[in-house]
Amino acid sequence: MTPADITLAERLADAAAAAIRPYYRAEFETETKRDKSPVTEADKAAESAMRQILEAERPEDAIIGEEFGRKSGMSRRCWVLDPIDGTTSFIAGRPLFGTLIALTVNDFPVIGIIDQPISGERWLGVSGRETLFNGKPVRSRPCPKLDEAILATTSPHLFSNQDADYFSALAKQTETKRLIWGGDCYNYGLLASGHLDIVCESGLKLHDYAALVPVVEGAGGMMCDWYGDPLHAKSDGRVLAIGDPARLEDVIGAMATG
Amino acid sequence: MTPADITLAERLADAAAAAIRPYYRAEFETETKRDKSPVTEADKAAESAMRQILEAERPEDAIIGEEFGRKSGMSRRCWVLDPIDGTTSFIAGRPLFGTLIALTVNDFPVIGIIDQPISGERWLGVSGRETLFNGKPVRSRPCPKLDEAILATTSPHLFSNQDADYFSALAKQTETKRLIWGGDCYNYGLLASGHLDIVCESGLKLHDYAALVPVVEGAGGMMCDWYGDPLHAKSDGRVLAIGDPARLEDVIGAMATG
Repeated sequence: MTPADITLAERLADAAAAAIRPYYRAEFETETKRDKSPVTEADKAAESAMRQILEAERPEDAIIGEEFGRKSGMSRRCWVLDPIDGTTSFIAGRPLFGTLIALTVNDFPVIGIIDQPISGERWLGVSGRETLFNGKPVRSRPCPKLDEAILATTSPHLFSNQDADYFSALAKQTETKRLIWGGDCYNYGLLASGHLDIVCESGLKLHDYAALVPVVEGAGGMMCDWYGDPLHAKSDGRVLAIGDPARLEDVIGAMATG
Repeated sequence: MTPADITLAERLADAAAAAIRPYYRAEFETETKRDKSPVTEADKAAESAMRQILEAERPEDAIIGEEFGRKSGMSRRCWVLDPIDGTTSFIAGRPLFGTLIALTVNDFPVIGIIDQPISGERWLGVSGRETLFNGKPVRSRPCPKLDEAILATTSPHLFSNQDADYFSALAKQTETKRLIWGGDCYNYGLLASGHLDIVCESGLKLHDYAALVPVVEGAGGMMCDWYGDPLHAKSDGRVLAIGDPARLEDVIGAMATG
């Protein structure tokens, strides 16, 4: 990973944002994918814009994109793209969706961007550096007690039966009146900026979580699977973000009672 | 209700927004109320700012506010105020909360404002007039089939056991992959603007729903309780917003299977 990769990642985010903005709260085609999730013209236009740049400037790198799949590469590097994370929010005109861009090296994410093209908010995370929000460093916040934590998750439908029990067990030990629903990738940005404490989700794919890792970790938080292990390309899609890593054992202990 | 009341309602929204903005994503005190819901300095400052104007300029009118309760009046008119609807979103730095302002006459809402002070978005509804979004008329959209409807609700925890069954029965007959969680009052604005089709909630108080009625109805949608009856000051807090009123029977029929 070089400084040029960081510049390139930001250019990908700019290109996706320019592709998405004209469709926001406007007319667009929506299709239903095989997994029944929706995809719009905006998702496709944004991913195409990013792939075009990558194919011209990084022909040796692999690409994994939510809409157009996998392109293999000749390097150990892979660009992981989710043009619109939170397509349902996008369709409903809610400015909480985001474009996710990650660079993985040997399957571990080293650059991550969460970009909200309507509000113009961008979190940039790079391994070993401070996470930037619109160019300024941000920190996740201390959370001395689990029962004071603000917990967020996108939808109760993300969880299979057993996973729902684990999540409920965690929710019971946090401030449940302050549990936040909806939000997709935006919740992880808010955690990195110190506004909420825990995000717990399951059923995520690599393109949903790869970009989040450098953003959260560069802000002092922790990203891991439900066993507390680091996330990589083969993780099982059960994801925890914890703003104060000192709460990891409490979180995993609470879930184990579910 | 006079044109001066509409101007006054907008001034109340301006005053609340000016009181709220300095606290957004900044440090503030948060307390937990008797019902365990949170209240912040920003909620109190915004309601105080609005009450100060009303007490000076409409001393004869009643006031009901979420934070400072009821002040009786000498008229059949009552200003119903929720300084921050979606306090949890506000605390977590999500720009989906809103200030709700309603004027009721004989217990029925005749003016309603949903104001989002961070994005600068305002829906203004007045009985018998077209709803305005930032000054421009908006319309809810047709929804020819229930199974194509986008349904939104703030939290699964809003529903008591039996109500959760009614809601699930409705969700099963809509596009559940497009079900939207979180959002509070903002969802009703998006419905008025034609971006989503149904909002179904329970446990709402008068200050949560009074302002929504003129906004949704002035856009061509329907606001009612779960029996299909109009909302007023004594409604039971179970609220439906339907963008296409032709779907009312389908919605109530679907819920009845729960």
